[in-house]
Amino acid sequence: MSLDRNGGASRQSLENPRAPRKILRQAINEIDSLEQGREAYAAIEELYPICRSITGDGLRQSLRIIQKTVLLALQEVPTGTQVFDWTVPKEWNIRDAYIKNGAGERVVDFQKCNLHVLNYSLPVRRKMSLTELRPHLFTLPETPEWIPYRTSYYRETWGFCLAKTQFDRLKDEEYEVCIDSTLEPGYLTYGEYRIQGATDDEVLISCHACHPSLCNDNLSGMTIAARLARFLESVSLRYSYRFLWIPGTVGSITWLARNEPILPQIKHGLVLSCLGDSGPFTYKRSRRGDAEIDRAVEQVLRHSGFSFQALDFIPYGYDERQYCSPGINLPVGCFLRTPNGCYPQYHTSADDLSLVTASSLAESFRQLLRVIQVLEENGRYLNLNPKCEPQLGRRGLYRQMGGMKDAAVREMAILWVLNLSDGQHDLLDIAARSGLPFDQISSAVAALREADLLEPVE
Amino acid sequence: MSLDRNGGASRQSLENPRAPRKILRQAINEIDSLEQGREAYAAIEELYPICRSITGDGLRQSLRIIQKTVLLALQEVPTGTQVFDWTVPKEWNIRDAYIKNGAGERVVDFQKCNLHVLNYSLPVRRKMSLTELRPHLFTLPETPEWIPYRTSYYRETWGFCLAKTQFDRLKDEEYEVCIDSTLEPGYLTYGEYRIQGATDDEVLISCHACHPSLCNDNLSGMTIAARLARFLESVSLRYSYRFLWIPGTVGSITWLARNEPILPQIKHGLVLSCLGDSGPFTYKRSRRGDAEIDRAVEQVLRHSGFSFQALDFIPYGYDERQYCSPGINLPVGCFLRTPNGCYPQYHTSADDLSLVTASSLAESFRQLLRVIQVLEENGRYLNLNPKCEPQLGRRGLYRQMGGMKDAAVREMAILWVLNLSDGQHDLLDIAARSGLPFDQISSAVAALREADLLEPVE
Amino acid sequence: MSLDRNGGASRQSLENPRAPRKILRQAINEIDSLEQGREAYAAIEELYPICRSITGDGLRQSLRIIQKTVLLALQEVPTGTQVFDWTVPKEWNIRDAYIKNGAGERVVDFQKCNLHVLNYSLPVRRKMSLTELRPHLFTLPETPEWIPYRTSYYRETWGFCLAKTQFDRLKDEEYEVCIDSTLEPGYLTYGEYRIQGATDDEVLISCHACHPSLCNDNLSGMTIAARLARFLESVSLRYSYRFLWIPGTVGSITWLARNEPILPQIKHGLVLSCLGDSGPFTYKRSRRGDAEIDRAVEQVLRHSGFSFQALDFIPYGYDERQYCSPGINLPVGCFLRTPNGCYPQYHTSADDLSLVTASSLAESFRQLLRVIQVLEENGRYLNLNPKCEPQLGRRGLYRQMGGMKDAAVREMAILWVLNLSDGQHDLLDIAARSGLPFDQISSAVAALREADLLEPVE
Repeated sequence: MSLDRNGGASRQSLENPRAPRKILRQAINEIDSLEQGREAYAAIEELYPICRSITGDGLRQSLRIIQKTVLLALQEVPTGTQVFDWTVPKEWNIRDAYIKNGAGERVVDFQKCNLHVLNYSLPVRRKMSLTELRPHLFTLPETPEWIPYRTSYYRETWGFCLAKTQFDRLKDEEYEVCIDSTLEPGYLTYGEYRIQGATDDEVLISCHACHPSLCNDNLSGMTIAARLARFLESVSLRYSYRFLWIPGTVGSITWLARNEPILPQIKHGLVLSCLGDSGPFTYKRSRRGDAEIDRAVEQVLRHSGFSFQALDFIPYGYDERQYCSPGINLPVGCFLRTPNGCYPQYHTSADDLSLVTASSLAESFRQLLRVIQVLEENGRYLNLNPKCEPQLGRRGLYRQMGGMKDAAVREMAILWVLNLSDGQHDLLDIAARSGLPFDQISSAVAALREADLLEPVE
Repeated sequence: MSLDRNGGASRQSLENPRAPRKILRQAINEIDSLEQGREAYAAIEELYPICRSITGDGLRQSLRIIQKTVLLALQEVPTGTQVFDWTVPKEWNIRDAYIKNGAGERVVDFQKCNLHVLNYSLPVRRKMSLTELRPHLFTLPETPEWIPYRTSYYRETWGFCLAKTQFDRLKDEEYEVCIDSTLEPGYLTYGEYRIQGATDDEVLISCHACHPSLCNDNLSGMTIAARLARFLESVSLRYSYRFLWIPGTVGSITWLARNEPILPQIKHGLVLSCLGDSGPFTYKRSRRGDAEIDRAVEQVLRHSGFSFQALDFIPYGYDERQYCSPGINLPVGCFLRTPNGCYPQYHTSADDLSLVTASSLAESFRQLLRVIQVLEENGRYLNLNPKCEPQLGRRGLYRQMGGMKDAAVREMAILWVLNLSDGQHDLLDIAARSGLPFDQISSAVAALREADLLEPVE
Repeated sequence: MSLDRNGGASRQSLENPRAPRKILRQAINEIDSLEQGREAYAAIEELYPICRSITGDGLRQSLRIIQKTVLLALQEVPTGTQVFDWTVPKEWNIRDAYIKNGAGERVVDFQKCNLHVLNYSLPVRRKMSLTELRPHLFTLPETPEWIPYRTSYYRETWGFCLAKTQFDRLKDEEYEVCIDSTLEPGYLTYGEYRIQGATDDEVLISCHACHPSLCNDNLSGMTIAARLARFLESVSLRYSYRFLWIPGTVGSITWLARNEPILPQIKHGLVLSCLGDSGPFTYKRSRRGDAEIDRAVEQVLRHSGFSFQALDFIPYGYDERQYCSPGINLPVGCFLRTPNGCYPQYHTSADDLSLVTASSLAESFRQLLRVIQVLEENGRYLNLNPKCEPQLGRRGLYRQMGGMKDAAVREMAILWVLNLSDGQHDLLDIAARSGLPFDQISSAVAALREADLLEPVE
């Protein structure tokens, strides 16, 4: 494990020597997705109680739990470091927090749920009246049993979040208020893991790791990213893959500011979040809108058998906001099930272990593998017999008896690949034009290369 | 007032020295549109009885009434002047016209309604049988109470238009037919008014002023144009504005033929007509189809709260036919409520003072101001902090407390402007992509320029 | 008639000297389509009994019957000739075939229906048990009364096709099986006919002529092509027209391989098939998708008064597969009624004389003439009076009396042609933009050229 407080982790320290690798397509067919979903769920259970934030020991502890799945490096960036327009903030840590009533009972207790503390609260230890306390209390009147999740990273204050029903029970008496936190110079921590492929061209997979006890947003993303990394370690890859577990916004800004020279190598990217609920898949396109990653995800979801929605980029959401800022403009989309803000439990205590399931995590994992397969296998080819169709029958690529009512899917895929392999269309184009699944197109390519009827362009 | 019978009005004579001007956006928010609608309606009442045509004293008298609102110049172009493929026609004037029956009663009387005369009728004074008269009579069998509006500018003839019910009462007797008109060498008259803005780039606002007693088509356009001109005089402007009150077809052809050198300065334009009925708004796009004026009007109407239709250009309608002829091809659209030919009263005596209302005129006026605001405020900007988002919170441009469920519209507008201000997108593009009203986008620009995060391109 | 066994037919031999030609538009208006449909149907009746294949005397005999309509040349290409990736196959001929039961009765009889023989079957004359025979028998269980149509051109075998009801009656006894065929070196035969127009630019009309007793697929295409050729002989043409009656796949490949130098002259093309059933029209676009032929056919069908569908190119179907292979990529679409594979009788004995009608053939013929008219008349023009509209009234091109509610279609067509004749738009563009039938646009062009307001571009 590389724990480099200078923030200067070398690329070598992020790579890992490995056993001979398997063929991706075969490994995808062999892997037990449901088992992967179950392991992701188990990791979520372990991570759930920890109080994470954009800095501090809760974040570090969480990244070390992820290290049980994949040996990510912890990167530490000192408070005060300038990262583009931003400054790395002070480090926040918290041990305890409560509101005690006149009887000395903890009526709001951080030990029961870490959402009770306004994240990044300054330390406080005072007695005060309900009137004095009330401006520091936050509730959700529409869902009175749920505790809201709130933060105040960049304005120094303190506060408590509580259920409306709890709030309503508070009598007009004196309360003992305690937040045992520190906000001091320290470090911003993030996790990074890179798998070297045959080329230095990279696929970036990023997730935010800063939310406290919230399962779908984003323990689901953190654990699925880890399982993807572990899987990809074992297979032969064209691209290199870089995984980031970062605090939202300031984390991606920090990483981008420290890694500008390598940005041109990033060819495709995905931000992962909200992968564990039971909603249909959502893909939010990159700012470019028609990048290869956009076409790849939509192709996979169109043939997934599940309903899905594809949305245009908007400059709001997760870290794609930074990856897709106009001066960075990476081809990075966002892969989710139900998007942020679109399910009632979002940013409340109800985003708990009952909202996410192993089977939803498993299916998210499976679709992401299919996306990676598309990226790995996509390319442009040249039909080496472009004048009329080659005689497929004598090469065993075509049914031997004519006059039948329809060509099989396999033959249609072969005809499409031959017809559109003029160097202008990639396999994603051919899949889209033909309406066939990418896998069929890719299999046809393999058969045609075997028969010396096709060669890759470039 | 410049009344220049040589047709050589200098630009100076069209301009007016004025008091210090107000900010457009503020002036639009302050103006009482309904009062403007009422004043337009009052002017329509005054103009309604006059017998206008494509030349003659009725047209001159009408333009002088418009001068009470705005000091337009009357331009006079002599009969016989060659204007592109056309020749300025003889001037037509009429004093009286009637058909008297055997009892000497005026059964058709120009004094009661000037639509009774086929516009541009030659003088006639004769007795004749009904059989002889009948080919000169025009009715509308489907709406038997209404008098049609008909013209014969370019074929010398005479005729009467009358209600079908009137026609049916005509007995087979001898009639005295009188049209006391003259058709002689004279002038074609049009009104022109120009407001100098900060630049010589122009916005053209054109309306036809040649129809006799018809309110929606086009006293509504004539009077709203006048009120727009009067309003724009009082505000600070980027563009210069040129207003034309012209006889249809031959008037715009005449103006274009006499003003070819300034056509490159015309950056946007609108033809106004049918602004007083209660129908939904209609925008007919310029021939180019995606000109800035097209995008501006559609943006405004989309957020107007009213239903509207946007139609592709067709080479039929009003003077946009000339402005959008292939050798002129100006970016001129047509702004209407119910289009010509699409309401039953069109080109009949039922297009009267009851068809138009002050409130419809007021709302047309208001939307046109919004269009002008878009043209004035639109532009392209450069995000000066393009790498990741700038930290908006410390600049007071972002809510201070995170974790809430949704960003406010104001913040979304700021994020959209930052994200798309790469020099490629103008504010209309950003409004369209974001789905936000132009005004929100423009306000965000102001806030970001204040914070030195944005600068104009060029 | 040119019967050139060397396959070296000179162009001269394909042309024909003729009487002075009629104007196409006029000839189309004069021709009795229904009579043409009746003659096509009569030819289908004569062709129906013949056992055609991709080579052999049945094909030759059929082409000679077509010669009664149009003097096509029979081209003969020797077995073994290399044509791109393919080799011209041996020639197949058949005299008789049957299965006799133990009682000596012909229970399956080629003389009753030539579909009974698996097309291209090797000769066989043997006694065998039902068990031995069964793998060589093909039926259609879902339509038990119908005989399937099957071929085995490129795998040497033999077989019989029969109705499922026939098959079910076969007892477990010994059968005498006879196929009196030959498969020997010979020739591949196709028919070709070329009409010289004013230019050498060509329109290619191709149909497959290799199917045995099947009427819609493709005796309908063969006979309609012949009638089109006969019609075009009699009229004055801009393009030259080349008609091909070829065996499917190997025939088009053979023709393309032998005629590569002239391919650049082919500006438009259509494959014809399935023109006699009662289904709506279908147009399958060329691989380019927006070629002039694609726009022409869709324009004609949109205004045909019949329902139709336009489909994107797919690399499956008829000989458009070869014409649209990536290294050939000719602008060739496919014109049909119900497409191959989409009607239940397709490739069965039920595609017989009752499936096709003279009136369906007639309407197909008529629409194809309209397509040819569009190709012949389409072009780009320049408005010679592009600044504002020309004064149409004094040229007799516009109604004389203004103020009427609507312009007639004829006037709208004139206005559209003037407005879009900037050298950028062809008449098909103008027809599409205006929503008017091509014929109206083309008539407007004629009127405007007459008035010296328009000239062709080039």
